[in-house]
Amino acid sequence: MLLLNLDRASAVPLYLQIAQQLAARIDAGALAAGEALSPTRLLAQRLGVNRSTVCRAYAQLQASGHVESCAGGYTRVRARAAATDAARTSDGHFDWGSRVRSATSPARSVQAVGDGIDFRPLAPDPRLAPVHALRRAMKLALADDTAGLLDYPSPLGHLPLRQWIAERMAHLGAPVTADSVMLCNGAQHGLDLVFRTLLAPGANVAVEAPGYACANALIAQHGANPIGVPMRDDGLDLAALAAVIAQHRPTALYTMPNFQNPTGITTPIAHREQLMRLCEAHALPIIEDGFAEDMKYFGRAVPPLKALDRQGLVIHVGTFSKLLFPGLRVGWIAASPTLIAALAATRSTADLGGSALPAAALWQLCASGEFDRHLRRLHTEYRRRMQRLIRATRTWLTSERVRCSMPQGGYVCWVEVDGGQAGTHADEAELIAALAAAGVRVTPGAGCYPAGHTPARTAFRLSIAQVDEAAIERGVQRIGEVLRARRP
Amino acid sequence: MLLLNLDRASAVPLYLQIAQQLAARIDAGALAAGEALSPTRLLAQRLGVNRSTVCRAYAQLQASGHVESCAGGYTRVRARAAATDAARTSDGHFDWGSRVRSATSPARSVQAVGDGIDFRPLAPDPRLAPVHALRRAMKLALADDTAGLLDYPSPLGHLPLRQWIAERMAHLGAPVTADSVMLCNGAQHGLDLVFRTLLAPGANVAVEAPGYACANALIAQHGANPIGVPMRDDGLDLAALAAVIAQHRPTALYTMPNFQNPTGITTPIAHREQLMRLCEAHALPIIEDGFAEDMKYFGRAVPPLKALDRQGLVIHVGTFSKLLFPGLRVGWIAASPTLIAALAATRSTADLGGSALPAAALWQLCASGEFDRHLRRLHTEYRRRMQRLIRATRTWLTSERVRCSMPQGGYVCWVEVDGGQAGTHADEAELIAALAAAGVRVTPGAGCYPAGHTPARTAFRLSIAQVDEAAIERGVQRIGEVLRARRP
Repeated sequence: MLLLNLDRASAVPLYLQIAQQLAARIDAGALAAGEALSPTRLLAQRLGVNRSTVCRAYAQLQASGHVESCAGGYTRVRARAAATDAARTSDGHFDWGSRVRSATSPARSVQAVGDGIDFRPLAPDPRLAPVHALRRAMKLALADDTAGLLDYPSPLGHLPLRQWIAERMAHLGAPVTADSVMLCNGAQHGLDLVFRTLLAPGANVAVEAPGYACANALIAQHGANPIGVPMRDDGLDLAALAAVIAQHRPTALYTMPNFQNPTGITTPIAHREQLMRLCEAHALPIIEDGFAEDMKYFGRAVPPLKALDRQGLVIHVGTFSKLLFPGLRVGWIAASPTLIAALAATRSTADLGGSALPAAALWQLCASGEFDRHLRRLHTEYRRRMQRLIRATRTWLTSERVRCSMPQGGYVCWVEVDGGQAGTHADEAELIAALAAAGVRVTPGAGCYPAGHTPARTAFRLSIAQVDEAAIERGVQRIGEVLRARRP
Repeated sequence: MLLLNLDRASAVPLYLQIAQQLAARIDAGALAAGEALSPTRLLAQRLGVNRSTVCRAYAQLQASGHVESCAGGYTRVRARAAATDAARTSDGHFDWGSRVRSATSPARSVQAVGDGIDFRPLAPDPRLAPVHALRRAMKLALADDTAGLLDYPSPLGHLPLRQWIAERMAHLGAPVTADSVMLCNGAQHGLDLVFRTLLAPGANVAVEAPGYACANALIAQHGANPIGVPMRDDGLDLAALAAVIAQHRPTALYTMPNFQNPTGITTPIAHREQLMRLCEAHALPIIEDGFAEDMKYFGRAVPPLKALDRQGLVIHVGTFSKLLFPGLRVGWIAASPTLIAALAATRSTADLGGSALPAAALWQLCASGEFDRHLRRLHTEYRRRMQRLIRATRTWLTSERVRCSMPQGGYVCWVEVDGGQAGTHADEAELIAALAAAGVRVTPGAGCYPAGHTPARTAFRLSIAQVDEAAIERGVQRIGEVLRARRP
């Protein structure tokens, strides 16, 4: 019997130290198949440990397939089958690369904040997060009951939060009740459930160009095609949309009417009504991404498409992630109860429903009024930041070759640049690199277009989500300097 | 101006009462399009409220599209576009039924506990849930940091919990490290991610028959086909599996080697090694569902397939849901890091990652040792229950026409019945109904087979997850009485 070295000061339990050291010797061939281990009583004596410790170690080795119990009470090293060589790849490992269906693009850009000023992140500023309120909310959520954790959840999610969301949407004029609201793990997951319920492989979806890159990636993941419809200053080009409907017969339209990502554009009510009429006439379902619906901190408030929806044609996808704690992952879908039932069936099969805990905690935040107080603080802060951004662009981006969008809320602003080889990928990449060299990180415009759609201009997105006022001023100033230094 | 009735004792803010009553009148046509609302100052005087309250009400009505601000400071009722009749269905609502891709079957049986004894639920008994420990864990999770809630999560999930899981699996002999573990929202979600990453439409997946109904439903939802391989007393019929591989060229094998759902069968080590060799020879990936891996409370412990996996061919899917708090929704996938990277990319696009909160709380439970203490309590309780079940079946189900499986752990036992029109759907439905009439609810066997696979015998599943010892005894006695009363 080989000697074992036990470390009684270690955090690793003695039985595990014994099991691990014996396993290592078996793996190394120092103990051969069929060889008997020392009887437990004997090994326990030698090591000066309780016999039950050795028994536990042997049970562990048996569980890991290293040994087996044999007749007569002996424990012997098991003969283990050799892997079949025929199926191994060159390094002996299975070749997964050839089996993965499609190289799913890593849709989100890396949001690490490097040196300098980072206009890329589109999550609310962590410095504004209501951390203490969340702790209180969580305590309350777990205090009176266990927040629905004791059984599998309903696929629709936490009822009180659904009711709260329904009332809130009803206040915006949308005909929504709790049975037409379903919770999901953030807006992206809501889009996923909608797409997997509606899209057949090869289907087309009309999308905004530029638009939300991750929606385009998700549509492609479902084997469907995002068909770009150009954005104008007041929203989707409706004539172009009509042409796309005629030519591509899309299964749905995906649109962000408020503070659009990436342009920041909010479409006026007249445009929304025309859009509704067009889609009603063609029986084209609308997926309305209200990702920043609650970030109306100035300008004229416009009702969501869901509030103009008389036929149940609009699927509104909302989220808390742009307001607080994106890591909680709570969003919702508000749609016709018939569709909600189908989405619930899809979800029931997909993951048996979402975690009850984040929704229960959020509901406590909402019910206590903390959520609304937090929203007012966000509005105050982001109103200041957006005003600063708009002033700064007027001060520093004065060239006729530069156009900035004029957001009425939300987090993002879109900057288009003429001149150079504007609209080419090379021109944009060069500009993004020059900005990075000047310590300013922005989101490139090209990634916001569906495949096959050529942007008309070199462009980039600025998000003020995690940039404070002083940094906004400095950042835009540097952008102006970089743009002036470029060849015309 | 029509009179408004304000209720100052109501919880509904005054501005909302004003807005809601005006909106109701506009909707009813009592205020026509173009009509001016009273100036805010005047209405405020009449109602005896602050002018800002009226301004807020008007802003609300503007947001909901009921009114618009006009030149001269007037607020007028907006002309709203009528819905286009052409696209309406008979009741004026959009016909979603025709757009939903497939009627996704509600995969899970209803688990409501009715009168009598319910052998259907397969979630751990809520009476055993470590509620206080969870509260402490959650407090700790939110105490020192915010548990990763401040930003979007990593698609792989909470690192400390992944490390804990990897160490635990390594103790079982599986070559798993943190970078080969990815968290998901329960095992079902893990299966979903694997299927959507690997299965092309029309692909085949070899599955156990009988097997896990929700896996079959999920495979079908992805447009693929579950191909049944018969279960024998020691696990999958390997000759039949070889034939399925030759005939159907499946993309993967889905199997539950421990305490199989629904039969309760645990396959012996020799069978596992033969299975590994067969799959290695055909380069057939194995999806190992370890849904109750930790419920080894008696019998001989057998290592998971992942512990026999030398090529990275096995995708092990695990979950906490069968041990505590199924509503938390935390499971994991342990697989080759190459595949994990692909799964992470799929997930990144699908929902941007899971909630950090349930995983952070679970990790606190695990790190503090509470989880292991809870597991020991579960083992003690379910060992008793399963022993009672086995004794009761020997006492009450003595007919030669009845065969019960002999579980070595887990929650379920499988009962097959000969005689009558055994194996027909009618026979089984009649038996289930007779049992229900006797106050005993069981899960019908027919639902556990993939479409097109005809069960050889009338059968049902008994789960002791939420039935205590006394009820187990009574329940099995009643089952015996019902079986004896049936025609031979």
